[in-house]
Amino acid sequence: MGRLIARRPVLRLTPNGTSRRPDALAVEEPLELRVDGRPLAVTMRTPGHDVELAHGFLLTEGVIGAVEDVRDARYCGSRDEDGRNTYNVLDIGLAEGVPPPDAGVERNFYTTSSCGVCGKASLDAVRLRTRHSPRDDATRVAAEVLATLPDVLRERQRVFDSTGGLHAAGLFTAAGEPLVVREDVGRHNAVDKVLGWALMQGRVPVGGTVLVVSGRASFELVQKAVMAGVPVLAAVSAPSSLAVELAVECGLTLAGFVRDGRMNVYSHGERLTQAAHAS
Amino acid sequence: MGRLIARRPVLRLTPNGTSRRPDALAVEEPLELRVDGRPLAVTMRTPGHDVELAHGFLLTEGVIGAVEDVRDARYCGSRDEDGRNTYNVLDIGLAEGVPPPDAGVERNFYTTSSCGVCGKASLDAVRLRTRHSPRDDATRVAAEVLATLPDVLRERQRVFDSTGGLHAAGLFTAAGEPLVVREDVGRHNAVDKVLGWALMQGRVPVGGTVLVVSGRASFELVQKAVMAGVPVLAAVSAPSSLAVELAVECGLTLAGFVRDGRMNVYSHGERLTQAAHAS
Repeated sequence: MGRLIARRPVLRLTPNGTSRRPDALAVEEPLELRVDGRPLAVTMRTPGHDVELAHGFLLTEGVIGAVEDVRDARYCGSRDEDGRNTYNVLDIGLAEGVPPPDAGVERNFYTTSSCGVCGKASLDAVRLRTRHSPRDDATRVAAEVLATLPDVLRERQRVFDSTGGLHAAGLFTAAGEPLVVREDVGRHNAVDKVLGWALMQGRVPVGGTVLVVSGRASFELVQKAVMAGVPVLAAVSAPSSLAVELAVECGLTLAGFVRDGRMNVYSHGERLTQAAHAS
Repeated sequence: MGRLIARRPVLRLTPNGTSRRPDALAVEEPLELRVDGRPLAVTMRTPGHDVELAHGFLLTEGVIGAVEDVRDARYCGSRDEDGRNTYNVLDIGLAEGVPPPDAGVERNFYTTSSCGVCGKASLDAVRLRTRHSPRDDATRVAAEVLATLPDVLRERQRVFDSTGGLHAAGLFTAAGEPLVVREDVGRHNAVDKVLGWALMQGRVPVGGTVLVVSGRASFELVQKAVMAGVPVLAAVSAPSSLAVELAVECGLTLAGFVRDGRMNVYSHGERLTQAAHAS
């Protein structure tokens, strides 16, 4: 548990010659998520904050909506060749009255009964399913503050600089104060850990905050933000077409290419304020 | 089909002011993959080369091993609100005698009957399942050539420069000649499209080649390379711990941080040759 780094020997080849040295790698291990004993999903993740990861995953897939929907979480069953618990199987017990997820959780997000499999159906499915829409969140964020958050995220990343192999996600107040930062080999997992943390803190719907991610903004990352009620999502790199469409439809402010004091705003720019400037 | 770019208006905020302009975004749409009519998986992908994507996915999940294992591929069923085919549901018919995949394809890769869910079990599962191990591939690649391939990949990327939102994968000969380059919003999809192309060309097992990916090297990307029999995988960014372990075990040469004429070699460096140098 909590093994973030592994050391391995590496052969370094450069135009000037060859050297052998130890290198730090981001740890990746499978996590099987079960709900009331039934296998639901397997994800390759960086060990640590697994309970947050499970809460965030179930929140953003629409299975739970509040921390009270979870009765307990326990590592179970799985043992390695030496008989030790692998801590790679996590069973979430749902509280009484919480309906179990469908077996094909993933499928539900891309299809609705009224329509085929298409971008539109994917948007409809999220809109029908979310309990915590950001639409009515009146948060305002200063663009100058938002522009600095990727650097803060990077500073807070404990592991990235040594391995280069981790994605990061961070939740900030509208004033730019960091609330939580998580890292993972999987970009979805880093976001699930952050949103699971928020849920366990009783902070969902996550009003008045900014979620910052270290890479691109895909449909699935926007889906996760919307499902948790986050009003502003800022990505260091580009969004996809469907990510922008979902953000527009669901009332999420989506900024991309947030770096070097600049950004592109793809939806709901009304939440961003700017100081007046001379020019 | 083949919609790589969508145009959207974007609000550009800089320290010097605000402008509104059209922006190019990478298109993302769901693809539901069916096998003989049964839904198997949904992936968010960039439309285009879907049949290659399906072949590559089924190859690297161990469902098919050669192009003859597929009888036909057809877009089916799914219609949008205007009654038009969405081209987002692809049904692959398996040839007679090819066993259908288990419902939980994903799960099989992380567990074996002998062991729990752990990195070791994930490695065992790939080793037991692959038909095209790169272990005995005697390919040699000059390190100086390998070091140039990410730049060639970048040059061949048609869409990246305009959207910043796509991952790329390319297959090269050992002499550095590009065979195929594919782009996708999903990094796994880009690799599946490349390996599916190879399968459809009758080039699997893909001996004597180098697979180059634009981002990190995860367990799943190494798995895909191994399942297709690729001997050398080069990534522009970092590998994970489990990616390295799988490469070591399965006889794959794994290079990371391949940029600026340098690279780190994590496994099976014996395939890389270097010119003698003065120092």
